[in-house]
Amino acid sequence: MGDFAYEHLVKSIPDYPEPGVIFKDITPLLADSDGFAAVIDCIVDHFKDAGITKVVGAEARGFMVAAPVAYRLGAGFIPARKPGKLPRATYNEQYDLEYGTSELQIHVDALSEGDVVLLVDDLVATGGTALAQAKLAQRMGARVVGMAFLMELAFLHPREIITRELDIEFFSLIQVD
Amino acid sequence: MGDFAYEHLVKSIPDYPEPGVIFKDITPLLADSDGFAAVIDCIVDHFKDAGITKVVGAEARGFMVAAPVAYRLGAGFIPARKPGKLPRATYNEQYDLEYGTSELQIHVDALSEGDVVLLVDDLVATGGTALAQAKLAQRMGARVVGMAFLMELAFLHPREIITRELDIEFFSLIQVD
Repeated sequence: MGDFAYEHLVKSIPDYPEPGVIFKDITPLLADSDGFAAVIDCIVDHFKDAGITKVVGAEARGFMVAAPVAYRLGAGFIPARKPGKLPRATYNEQYDLEYGTSELQIHVDALSEGDVVLLVDDLVATGGTALAQAKLAQRMGARVVGMAFLMELAFLHPREIITRELDIEFFSLIQVD
Repeated sequence: MGDFAYEHLVKSIPDYPEPGVIFKDITPLLADSDGFAAVIDCIVDHFKDAGITKVVGAEARGFMVAAPVAYRLGAGFIPARKPGKLPRATYNEQYDLEYGTSELQIHVDALSEGDVVLLVDDLVATGGTALAQAKLAQRMGARVVGMAFLMELAFLHPREIITRELDIEFFSLIQVD
């Protein structure tokens, strides 16, 4: 258990979506007005002096946390989406899942040199999704300075994996050991 | 053209996702920090005295607008998702698309009697998605008092269709005639 006062609102769902996996359901936390506000405020408080110009969030749960953080930081919001969802030219980045690969896309004009980027997602496991988004941002000349996650599956060591590759501020509200 | 000062940031994409359709791409508007803030602030300003306890947003673009509105209203955020995305027991509601049907789901404990609900989405066309969400909310005993949309395809008459069925406050920032 960490310091975040609303951790008890995250429900553990055993054997979902498949046997042996414990799914972390954040919807009761987001449904609680105090808990939801605390999630956003804690992330914003941590990065409020970092000069963030754009917040990137990944489809689809990531949008629920990243968009309010962008709003509160006075930044623009950039969605990183699954293939076929963005209507204009995109940069694409594949990343590994436990079985197979997945892909995220960002519009080619979504970021530019001078942008200071915070990535926000609901959960980080092995860091593949986050690293893919960072590569997309860097391809547009933007500087990724931080990543914020509601939940960190610490037993998979995403903090070490990501900060070994990128010089960024890594922040999470709830760590699952 | 309406009164919303950032309407020019919505890009029209002809023949997407199929020939004859003009897709309205809101990502440049959300990427603009002033435009994004204006979207959220205008909706919040319209409903700030309505006693909203929960904001419901539909997957996935709806999350980008609905979650910041929930945060700013001091309400909880409830996602209405496509089948197979929510891990616990759900209520399900089918609705018609131009060709075929689709379905949205909400956790059965997401809302309850006493909740005052605002539905927020990026776009309203024929109102099917919005009416499906309203039915889901009502099944839990919640009271839906308003719906807010970034864009209203007014030539499809969603305002008339929805307010004929429901006694709610219908609000949109951009009307496409």
